[in-house]
Amino acid sequence: MSNPKVVLAYSGGLDTSVAIKWLGDQGYAVVACCLDVGEGKDLDFVKEKALQVGAVASYVIDAREEFAQEFALVALQAHALYENKYPLVSALSRPLIAKKLVEVAEKEGAVAVAHGCTGKGNDQVRFEVAIAGLNPDLEVLAPVRDWKWSREEEIAYAKENGIPVPIQLDSPYSIDQNLWGRSNECGILEDPWAAPPEDAYDLTNSLENTPDTPEIIEIGFEEGVPVTLNGKSYMLSQLITELNYIAGKHGVGRIDHVENRLVGIKSREIYEVPGATTLMKAHKELEDLTLVKELAHFKPIIEKQVAELIYNGLWFSQLRTALQAFLKESQKYVTGTVRVKLFKGHAIVEGRKSPYTLYDEKLATYTSDDEFDHNAAIGFIKLWGLPTKVQSAVQGNKKVTV
Amino acid sequence: MSNPKVVLAYSGGLDTSVAIKWLGDQGYAVVACCLDVGEGKDLDFVKEKALQVGAVASYVIDAREEFAQEFALVALQAHALYENKYPLVSALSRPLIAKKLVEVAEKEGAVAVAHGCTGKGNDQVRFEVAIAGLNPDLEVLAPVRDWKWSREEEIAYAKENGIPVPIQLDSPYSIDQNLWGRSNECGILEDPWAAPPEDAYDLTNSLENTPDTPEIIEIGFEEGVPVTLNGKSYMLSQLITELNYIAGKHGVGRIDHVENRLVGIKSREIYEVPGATTLMKAHKELEDLTLVKELAHFKPIIEKQVAELIYNGLWFSQLRTALQAFLKESQKYVTGTVRVKLFKGHAIVEGRKSPYTLYDEKLATYTSDDEFDHNAAIGFIKLWGLPTKVQSAVQGNKKVTV
Amino acid sequence: MSNPKVVLAYSGGLDTSVAIKWLGDQGYAVVACCLDVGEGKDLDFVKEKALQVGAVASYVIDAREEFAQEFALVALQAHALYENKYPLVSALSRPLIAKKLVEVAEKEGAVAVAHGCTGKGNDQVRFEVAIAGLNPDLEVLAPVRDWKWSREEEIAYAKENGIPVPIQLDSPYSIDQNLWGRSNECGILEDPWAAPPEDAYDLTNSLENTPDTPEIIEIGFEEGVPVTLNGKSYMLSQLITELNYIAGKHGVGRIDHVENRLVGIKSREIYEVPGATTLMKAHKELEDLTLVKELAHFKPIIEKQVAELIYNGLWFSQLRTALQAFLKESQKYVTGTVRVKLFKGHAIVEGRKSPYTLYDEKLATYTSDDEFDHNAAIGFIKLWGLPTKVQSAVQGNKKVTV
Amino acid sequence: MSNPKVVLAYSGGLDTSVAIKWLGDQGYAVVACCLDVGEGKDLDFVKEKALQVGAVASYVIDAREEFAQEFALVALQAHALYENKYPLVSALSRPLIAKKLVEVAEKEGAVAVAHGCTGKGNDQVRFEVAIAGLNPDLEVLAPVRDWKWSREEEIAYAKENGIPVPIQLDSPYSIDQNLWGRSNECGILEDPWAAPPEDAYDLTNSLENTPDTPEIIEIGFEEGVPVTLNGKSYMLSQLITELNYIAGKHGVGRIDHVENRLVGIKSREIYEVPGATTLMKAHKELEDLTLVKELAHFKPIIEKQVAELIYNGLWFSQLRTALQAFLKESQKYVTGTVRVKLFKGHAIVEGRKSPYTLYDEKLATYTSDDEFDHNAAIGFIKLWGLPTKVQSAVQGNKKVTV
Repeated sequence: MSNPKVVLAYSGGLDTSVAIKWLGDQGYAVVACCLDVGEGKDLDFVKEKALQVGAVASYVIDAREEFAQEFALVALQAHALYENKYPLVSALSRPLIAKKLVEVAEKEGAVAVAHGCTGKGNDQVRFEVAIAGLNPDLEVLAPVRDWKWSREEEIAYAKENGIPVPIQLDSPYSIDQNLWGRSNECGILEDPWAAPPEDAYDLTNSLENTPDTPEIIEIGFEEGVPVTLNGKSYMLSQLITELNYIAGKHGVGRIDHVENRLVGIKSREIYEVPGATTLMKAHKELEDLTLVKELAHFKPIIEKQVAELIYNGLWFSQLRTALQAFLKESQKYVTGTVRVKLFKGHAIVEGRKSPYTLYDEKLATYTSDDEFDHNAAIGFIKLWGLPTKVQSAVQGNKKVTV
Repeated sequence: MSNPKVVLAYSGGLDTSVAIKWLGDQGYAVVACCLDVGEGKDLDFVKEKALQVGAVASYVIDAREEFAQEFALVALQAHALYENKYPLVSALSRPLIAKKLVEVAEKEGAVAVAHGCTGKGNDQVRFEVAIAGLNPDLEVLAPVRDWKWSREEEIAYAKENGIPVPIQLDSPYSIDQNLWGRSNECGILEDPWAAPPEDAYDLTNSLENTPDTPEIIEIGFEEGVPVTLNGKSYMLSQLITELNYIAGKHGVGRIDHVENRLVGIKSREIYEVPGATTLMKAHKELEDLTLVKELAHFKPIIEKQVAELIYNGLWFSQLRTALQAFLKESQKYVTGTVRVKLFKGHAIVEGRKSPYTLYDEKLATYTSDDEFDHNAAIGFIKLWGLPTKVQSAVQGNKKVTV
Repeated sequence: MSNPKVVLAYSGGLDTSVAIKWLGDQGYAVVACCLDVGEGKDLDFVKEKALQVGAVASYVIDAREEFAQEFALVALQAHALYENKYPLVSALSRPLIAKKLVEVAEKEGAVAVAHGCTGKGNDQVRFEVAIAGLNPDLEVLAPVRDWKWSREEEIAYAKENGIPVPIQLDSPYSIDQNLWGRSNECGILEDPWAAPPEDAYDLTNSLENTPDTPEIIEIGFEEGVPVTLNGKSYMLSQLITELNYIAGKHGVGRIDHVENRLVGIKSREIYEVPGATTLMKAHKELEDLTLVKELAHFKPIIEKQVAELIYNGLWFSQLRTALQAFLKESQKYVTGTVRVKLFKGHAIVEGRKSPYTLYDEKLATYTSDDEFDHNAAIGFIKLWGLPTKVQSAVQGNKKVTV
Repeated sequence: MSNPKVVLAYSGGLDTSVAIKWLGDQGYAVVACCLDVGEGKDLDFVKEKALQVGAVASYVIDAREEFAQEFALVALQAHALYENKYPLVSALSRPLIAKKLVEVAEKEGAVAVAHGCTGKGNDQVRFEVAIAGLNPDLEVLAPVRDWKWSREEEIAYAKENGIPVPIQLDSPYSIDQNLWGRSNECGILEDPWAAPPEDAYDLTNSLENTPDTPEIIEIGFEEGVPVTLNGKSYMLSQLITELNYIAGKHGVGRIDHVENRLVGIKSREIYEVPGATTLMKAHKELEDLTLVKELAHFKPIIEKQVAELIYNGLWFSQLRTALQAFLKESQKYVTGTVRVKLFKGHAIVEGRKSPYTLYDEKLATYTSDDEFDHNAAIGFIKLWGLPTKVQSAVQGNKKVTV
């Protein structure tokens, strides 16, 4: 009888290469599966390497546009920032990777899927909950969490088994990257009093190295979706890629965050999200123009919940589909153009316009064009302030004497 | 019999100078009352001018430290940003001004207080609700809202009555300023597609004119209160003033906002809040280090409510005192030092430390010092993901077929 | 030239009958429009009476099923209770009435619509905001608010103009009723220390007069919609009517509420909602069985917002459509049967079952069938309690010494 | 060397009696500690039994008034209902028991504390997180979770070791009780379609057996604390006990709940909370009279958080103290009297009065005493509805055509 199959989320790095061999040792036939979600990998190389270190099959899947349309767009429209800071870089790609792993597992008749996470991060939770949410019958393996080797032991095992050990292995950082941005932790970053060194960044220029001339761009939105850049139409994944480049050049989107992990600890991470930052700012400003007040005031509650749900690995929950239904409905009139000045690390929205703008110059103006009914304010204030007035009359004395 | 007294919030400008005369015409004895909340007025000049244009008495009150301690500090600890953008500049001073007007009115035996707001802004609401909340027996007069003159008619009346008309009257802008910042509306700003011109700003350098060398500062907090700057102790009002100067020099704290007013319209305003921006960023980062996760995750709901309540003129509500009790309790361990780099419009927190830090390097590290129990994650994930797994097993099939 | 037309929300009562004549006096041709939203009116009589007192046309519209499907169902699925008590009886019908008035106005080429509310209730706000939300070009008239007559003056005017004055006019109460329930205010109810007298109720038996034998019913739901009663299919409006009768007989659904009106005052009202109470309880219990935990925990925030939005007259806001999109998505698996015991004022859910139940007896049981992994709890608790443990270790000492 | 000490939460039942022996087998000297939180135990008997089965010391502590003042009162003022249903019976006592265990452990120099929970409920989490929050250095043991015996194996062990096995052991239910109420699960209750049998209840009469005459009581509150019953002063624990008896007689406070446990499963439990239900209803009605609107509208968000935090075992978190500070401030004017009719399972509030009532009959009335300014409504509606009107004018057409 043939060995049972496991589908492994394969990155081409040391951990998952060793995992192919190690899972083989446990009696599995390993199917490697590598997704391109915009980190700029050499997919051919990765595909070959998997086979070379012992995989029985090797998939590489270009999921960039799916990632942009189905995941990044939700984060954009929800202005999703965990703890009002972290734009969900890794958290956003995990459910898509899990989905592809499950699809491959079902196609290959595998009994399990495997990921390369350790026992301490959020990503193990996201992978495993997502997989359970898609196919509760698949077993999930976590070789790196299981083998508990030190770095030295892992390298020794790799050498023994003919697995190539990369030269730049002594990087102090642990990095993840996709279309929506890049995250970095470990090394000196573990000291929250230390400033992140310049070599911790890759997608963005330092402020000191940004151009001395601003760059003005225009982003066009249709029903909440960014569709044009400087008047030219783009597929969403391309538009984000392009913005990562332009805004990154101007140093936009560096974030330094001490965050509360799902697994109970605080950690310090840095993020680079040039495109995401620019898009979220622009999108928010267009909403400021086109959302009616009560919708604008309630939507942040939805946004906070979207961010926490994604961070916490609950993408495949019915709550997410319900939140997304709200979001979609909220975007119906978020159509228009936003002008952004990129300069010295800033994405400054300088102008916004929309055919559905609710900003009415005739009501807002202090010039003689004013159409606002000033008398109405008197009645408004009377009723608006009535509870306070009654409270003061009845309970005010106590405040004085007590 | 003598004329009934009215206490007028007096700024020294044209509107309230004309109001002194106009209220006199209506049969009132006008007591002028000018507060210094940090806008840098020449108080002696204002005091004299009030008497000169017809006030029967003229008060000037230095309320800067009270404003800092009782109002700005609440905004700081609540990271209060209306619609996640506007740091409540004017909204914050109105209740204090109202309180002082009521105190003077009670001392002078006045029957009314008066303010110089028009019928279209938020400030009329804030003044009138605050006054009703402090002394519901006082009448409130709003001469500028009542007389409904055009600019030309007002100037004509001023000239007829010997009221000095300032030369710079043709400024297109309408400005309010205090310790916490400066707001500006009207003129070209009424076009949301137009970039704010440089002359609309005053407290901050343009990015183009900021120094090419960063400035590193350290802010010390005790129980949520900023008490030192670069190791030196300051009164809070002085510390904010100092930061306005330093951070303003580096272009920190420009905000351009299309906002939903309480009175039902959208308006576009710009704000300059160099000190407030720097302090809020630093304070938030210290909280990231010292607040336990569930407190950090719930506090933003309190913060949103504080911002909306202040914006909406409900400072003297029992809700505010209850929210403030929460805030105060939350600050017990927000003690420590934050290092901020001011550069090119940014206030970048580079380091934070605290004797009460909940960031535990031994738990967070990926080095061999790691004390985190990696096995615990397996049980955690099992229970965390159990609802999703059951949902998938029971309701998952329907998703496929429907 | 002919008189401009106004469409009046006509009830057949004294106020709106007088309004027909009074609006005629102001130069309008009055089109009466009476909606049946389930209050059990004699529509033929009302239609005739409008013409008799001077209307140029008279519409009667049976809107019961539309009210049930488009409005009551939203309230049901949102468990909408303003201030956790008031099930939105009148608030729910106002937007539908406004919609029909606007439709008739557009068909008739009217320039205005009119309602019979006074200046003190919430309904004037709901009517006028709804009409502005549907057709901002229509003028809104409020004759009763405008004429400011005492009861005696109104009756005198009616007699002078040949308008029939009902005999039971000396009822102390002010009542509104529809499919979803009945509200009552005024008279002795204005004293919040007084118990509501028995004659204030109409749809429900007093506890003292309810049957001494319980009645067990079963309600069947499909995707959140109640579709069967005791196994028999009903149109929604019929099902609610039937439940009003059965549950009312058993005294279910009396509510006594001191509430905060939108217009700034507290008022005391009583409600009778036998069918609505029974349905909301049953629906909630089915959700308890079928909603995944995180959806069950977030949905109440949506529910509170739905209730406040409807109470505040903002039905025709984009926020409502977005909230409704969330609701609809949340109901996908709310299918099943609920068994309710009606007895002595209670609607007690005794049993609930669903093909999509997430209650898993194999996980929940304490018998030997138990499939729950008890070991997983150890890891779970370790990570769940880790923030508290670190907080205690770091900040605990201070608690002791301070 | 002497054996290390462990302090065991001892109930006198089989599980914890066996645990004394079993922990002894593991080399511990067991200190038994039994708390009276109002479940009506025979403490002398329990104290003796602990020593008899092998404890080296035995504490019994009457914590009823502390439980009432420090825990039940918070639940009352927060109207704390997990998932809007479960009044936190067991969840409320766990932190107090943990606190006493830690105090005894510190006094006795113990190295560990132990509880008798299994691996499936919420209480293990509450105990362990609370203990970690009070003294992170104490080890926590969970013998029942560890030994993994079947009922038969446990009884065999008990008999071998001379531990008395109670006769009523074949009760199908698992019960916990304190001042605030009684919870019951297991047996037939595990079937959510089955009605709870009468023998599952103990504190309340069935509706069929309640008196046919109502009982009217008056509860007096001072700053949110119930202090009198029918005009007579009581200690809080006594007042709750008394109300449990009176309201229980009338069948008040039965709850049947399918709930989402913290450990990831749904379970079905029933509760009896006659006193708690009566007090929460009365307290809420007094708040309806005395809280200003915006406080009344925000407090439920605090309440939901209090309920979830307690349910989730996070009592000793800084979030709880901050929430409690809000609560305390909110109760300043919640002083007055509430009249309640107890009848046929209902606690009906018939009247409420307060020296600080914000209900103003002169504003609320529709009689000629009316002091409300009806004209103000016109201005109010204009501004309140302005956003909707502009939305309609700008975005309304799209709705029609799309």
